[in-house]
Amino acid sequence: MTDDRFFRRSGPFVLGDLARHIGAEVPCDASAKFSVHGLAALDKAESGEVSVFSEAQHRDSFQNSHASVVVTNNALSKHEHNGTMLLLCENPRLAFAQIGHLFYPRNLPKSGIHAQAHIDPSARIGAGTYIGAGAVIGADVKIGERCRIDCNAVIEESVSIGDDCDVGANTCISHAMIGNRVRISTNVSIGGEGFGFVPGPKGLLRVPQLGRVLIEDDVEIGGNCAIDRGGMDDTVIGRGTAIDNLVQIAHNVRIGKYCVIAGQAGVAGSSTIGDFVMIGGQVAVKDHVTIGAHARIAGKSGVMRDVGAKESVAGVPAVPVREWHRQTLALEKLTQKPNGKAS
Amino acid sequence: MTDDRFFRRSGPFVLGDLARHIGAEVPCDASAKFSVHGLAALDKAESGEVSVFSEAQHRDSFQNSHASVVVTNNALSKHEHNGTMLLLCENPRLAFAQIGHLFYPRNLPKSGIHAQAHIDPSARIGAGTYIGAGAVIGADVKIGERCRIDCNAVIEESVSIGDDCDVGANTCISHAMIGNRVRISTNVSIGGEGFGFVPGPKGLLRVPQLGRVLIEDDVEIGGNCAIDRGGMDDTVIGRGTAIDNLVQIAHNVRIGKYCVIAGQAGVAGSSTIGDFVMIGGQVAVKDHVTIGAHARIAGKSGVMRDVGAKESVAGVPAVPVREWHRQTLALEKLTQKPNGKAS
Amino acid sequence: MTDDRFFRRSGPFVLGDLARHIGAEVPCDASAKFSVHGLAALDKAESGEVSVFSEAQHRDSFQNSHASVVVTNNALSKHEHNGTMLLLCENPRLAFAQIGHLFYPRNLPKSGIHAQAHIDPSARIGAGTYIGAGAVIGADVKIGERCRIDCNAVIEESVSIGDDCDVGANTCISHAMIGNRVRISTNVSIGGEGFGFVPGPKGLLRVPQLGRVLIEDDVEIGGNCAIDRGGMDDTVIGRGTAIDNLVQIAHNVRIGKYCVIAGQAGVAGSSTIGDFVMIGGQVAVKDHVTIGAHARIAGKSGVMRDVGAKESVAGVPAVPVREWHRQTLALEKLTQKPNGKAS
Repeated sequence: MTDDRFFRRSGPFVLGDLARHIGAEVPCDASAKFSVHGLAALDKAESGEVSVFSEAQHRDSFQNSHASVVVTNNALSKHEHNGTMLLLCENPRLAFAQIGHLFYPRNLPKSGIHAQAHIDPSARIGAGTYIGAGAVIGADVKIGERCRIDCNAVIEESVSIGDDCDVGANTCISHAMIGNRVRISTNVSIGGEGFGFVPGPKGLLRVPQLGRVLIEDDVEIGGNCAIDRGGMDDTVIGRGTAIDNLVQIAHNVRIGKYCVIAGQAGVAGSSTIGDFVMIGGQVAVKDHVTIGAHARIAGKSGVMRDVGAKESVAGVPAVPVREWHRQTLALEKLTQKPNGKAS
Repeated sequence: MTDDRFFRRSGPFVLGDLARHIGAEVPCDASAKFSVHGLAALDKAESGEVSVFSEAQHRDSFQNSHASVVVTNNALSKHEHNGTMLLLCENPRLAFAQIGHLFYPRNLPKSGIHAQAHIDPSARIGAGTYIGAGAVIGADVKIGERCRIDCNAVIEESVSIGDDCDVGANTCISHAMIGNRVRISTNVSIGGEGFGFVPGPKGLLRVPQLGRVLIEDDVEIGGNCAIDRGGMDDTVIGRGTAIDNLVQIAHNVRIGKYCVIAGQAGVAGSSTIGDFVMIGGQVAVKDHVTIGAHARIAGKSGVMRDVGAKESVAGVPAVPVREWHRQTLALEKLTQKPNGKAS
Repeated sequence: MTDDRFFRRSGPFVLGDLARHIGAEVPCDASAKFSVHGLAALDKAESGEVSVFSEAQHRDSFQNSHASVVVTNNALSKHEHNGTMLLLCENPRLAFAQIGHLFYPRNLPKSGIHAQAHIDPSARIGAGTYIGAGAVIGADVKIGERCRIDCNAVIEESVSIGDDCDVGANTCISHAMIGNRVRISTNVSIGGEGFGFVPGPKGLLRVPQLGRVLIEDDVEIGGNCAIDRGGMDDTVIGRGTAIDNLVQIAHNVRIGKYCVIAGQAGVAGSSTIGDFVMIGGQVAVKDHVTIGAHARIAGKSGVMRDVGAKESVAGVPAVPVREWHRQTLALEKLTQKPNGKAS
């Protein structure tokens, strides 16, 4: 059961509707009308709630769960359980997330602009968009419909934002063109000057940073990230890419579609990341490097040269992940005595 | 001498009172009445000030210090000095910190709510609490007594905060229950959505994040940290834990009591950290890992599997710290010629 | 061509003036009067624009560029090109940056203080300084002339800021003395309490943090950085140093002049960095370490002991960079079979 003070629950829904929503079959007429009022983890769920069983290691929780309904797949459903109703589908985690969105749809923002928001008269704000107290909307900004610009966010001059976007509190956006359904969390910095300097006679001379940040549809950006605008070119985040907290994206970086970039990773200037790339936490990608589509970079790696499509790499410098495992083992052996004990 | 423009000093205090405050003896009646008006490092202190000598390597500074009083222990007091008065105690650093709090107590906040703060009428604010200009307090928020909510901080709907807490400027808090005497610095993001996605037919589907952040009493959180709320469960920070700047705490993480987590460390989703654990700077802890009580993780390590109680680990992947030293040495030897020089 | 909605272009300038500005010769009278209206990368430039050719690997772009003018050096100018006019100089990148500043000078801020900024009556604000909506300027703050304090920035009590400084939106500054021409980006935290604790009988006792942050002239600080004030001493950032995004500078750190510190690097407490040091991305520098002038620290390194002047180091623990390369090679060899293939 979630804390209703923080989350607004829809429903209840009858089991038949849940099943249709996720493409599962319902066993019989009687249970199709069973009313489900919420969702929870197996070991927290109560009567009337739906849960999910997606990994065999949780079979004890499955067996003892008080959930009335459990989403699982055919194989896992063979584990012992206490007679709970089952919704069988191929991908229980996906189905459960879909049920989650049914119970907790994205709230339409409270419509309206707070009296203490600061909106430049030349800004254009779409219908149904909410702008919180203390938010600042600069000259010539365009914001689409049904957006939520949270309190004290600052949207600088000429930025454009599409429809159905969320911009978190205290986030700053400048020099950016943002698509639809983009969700940006709190304390994010978008559009800052890239870190480009040339040594000159009087110390470092900043290279003027004259590009933009282009963020395509359906991108998610976590809290406290910093995404710099391009130098001569643009910085681009491709459609559907998800970025975790505290990530650094430097100037001129191009990130493909549907990438996943975990917390505290950093991509240095002018590197190019293909589609569907997965980047682990605290990874560093050097500047001017190319990473092919569907590549996977293990957490804490340092990518110092190009990575091919579908390659998996790890380590500093990053090497194919199997090679990295061999290196790790070889290093362990080095420190062992002939009898196999550590020296 | 500290800069009085930034720090409000109490005192002066007579030496006898300082001694009693830290549990030290005073040598004689005359000096017990000596007036001490401030504190400083050995090499900066002036007449009338108290300093600390806690490590033998600073014996030259001790010998030459102009401090009138020095806090030290019995062993260190044997080093030569210029006749300064000594306060002897077992733990000079602790004693000196206690004296610091005597001279610089936590300022009671200026009481009152700034006219340009935005307070929802349903919020409940305790007596003696200060709320700065531009701060936003949402519906049904509860804030205890003697708190300081600094300028432009945003406390979202239904958050509760105990007594004697500090929330820094431009910090955002949502979906959180916070205890007493919690100190949160500036530009912190608490309660954002965890980084949970399931691959689906139309790209990544976000897993609804329906948990909270629970922060127990006496926790400290540094600037620009990001602490996500739980997915189905809660994210928990245990009593007395201290977290440095730019730290990432992912969804469902449980951190024990009195842990110390240094700057730029990150703990991935659903990991569990025991009590009194020390985590160095830029450490990464993988998701779903358990770290036992009193474990120590060396800076820059990557923890990829469980760590036992009281274990010390280092490296990527993290191994027992003695093993890591052996590996480092073995690697150095590999590159040396038989005569011992680097090849 | 840059996006004029975001960048205000000066000009056009005649080629003769551009040449004089960068100390290059102009080939003949006719071209000296040629009018140049903008700048762009080689492959984006159009007729009437100036570009730069500074690395041989871009010779194809040079050959096919539509730029009317290209800045390059004598050696590179021998590559084939399509008859574009050339401006020859020793350091084309520096010259092109200088031309960039000619076309895009730092905008003088819109002068004036926004009606919804919160300025303490005791603050002193210099002529020509702009303060944005929602910014908070505390008691006894001094801000020089021609500064730009962006929206929702918070400048706490007694901070002083010199002339011609930029402070980004939602940045927080306390306990700091800041020189001239300092540029601080968005969501930065300056002056927070250092991470100093002593174990005591009731858990950790915070060590009072009674120092300041001193930032010298011409420093640049990227988005979402955290720079703590000193404990007993000050934290110092030397003249002309450039710091990228998400960097952590701990208490009592002293950074020299003209250093370059890349994204997500961290320097732990009381370490000292000499002048002209270059620190790569995600580097960690241990506490109480000294790094000599002109040293270079490769990205992702962990510096655990002193580094001499002009040394280049890499790895964790950081060793001379040539030694690190040898170690990396030795580790690769370990996992290869005698025939040279990976085992």
